[in-house]
Amino acid sequence: MTPTITAFERSPDRGRGLARDMRVRSALEEAGQPYEVRLVSFVAMKEAPHLGLHPFGQIPTYEEGDLVLFESGAIVFHIAAHHAGLLSHDADARARAITWMFAALSTVEPPIVEYESAALLERDKTWCEERRPILEGRIHDRLDQLSSRLGELDWLDDGTIAQAMRARRPA
Amino acid sequence: MTPTITAFERSPDRGRGLARDMRVRSALEEAGQPYEVRLVSFVAMKEAPHLGLHPFGQIPTYEEGDLVLFESGAIVFHIAAHHAGLLSHDADARARAITWMFAALSTVEPPIVEYESAALLERDKTWCEERRPILEGRIHDRLDQLSSRLGELDWLDDGTIAQAMRARRPA
Repeated sequence: MTPTITAFERSPDRGRGLARDMRVRSALEEAGQPYEVRLVSFVAMKEAPHLGLHPFGQIPTYEEGDLVLFESGAIVFHIAAHHAGLLSHDADARARAITWMFAALSTVEPPIVEYESAALLERDKTWCEERRPILEGRIHDRLDQLSSRLGELDWLDDGTIAQAMRARRPA
Repeated sequence: MTPTITAFERSPDRGRGLARDMRVRSALEEAGQPYEVRLVSFVAMKEAPHLGLHPFGQIPTYEEGDLVLFESGAIVFHIAAHHAGLLSHDADARARAITWMFAALSTVEPPIVEYESAALLERDKTWCEERRPILEGRIHDRLDQLSSRLGELDWLDDGTIAQAMRARRPA
């Protein structure tokens, strides 16, 4: 059954692909799966029918027969778990890839969202300008850590890193 | 092989169980799995050996033989995926439970972390007091949405909700 996802009727990024439906679209495209898209207005997103799909009134959602999912991470994981090509068949490599999925959403993204939400929701506040470098600093700190882990490698997780992690493990 | 997790040597919450190792401990206890705990100081957390396990210098980590994981969500998922009792065997119920795992970490927790980090890192700033009600409001908004979904039920996901979601789905 072809799944249906939701996306913004008018994306705040004016179509630059920064909204969270893009991750789901990417996963579906990588997995070679057809899908349909239903566009939702900002008003409809906060009304009962959409809240029935997404309790926090956001996009994307994912409907596949009787199954309804929300949260881009969970949807991407569902696609990856059911179609070849996105997750390794090796159990340990798979667990590490899932670790990076959670890291992307729980650790890397939040300071970026905080920066963007301050720029949007607190732009008229007296502290907006003075806080900006603090928020930028938090993003840089996080990305520096990510960059340190990546180093000269092409991927965050490969055999080399797994070996290095074992070698550097505390006794 | 008995896994080893890491936790704060001195937790900022003084042992009230609010640190992120508690989720992993809970999952291991619920699954009836033995585990060892290695305590890490704030200094050691940011040094090379621990950064080899956790690129963002945080706790918890999870070591099981050659496998090293970080991110409490990923660790809890790994435990749930490998031991009975934490995730349903029904594929759809399982996907919905995973959705709520991502929702907890990506949608419900961030405004709470933002509030706590402002109280800690911006307590000397001129805007600290004036911003507090804004941050409290974001937490209340999120928890109100969560409360609306839960309603009078005992669990966020059960057959009743799945039926209700289908009934309220937009045409």
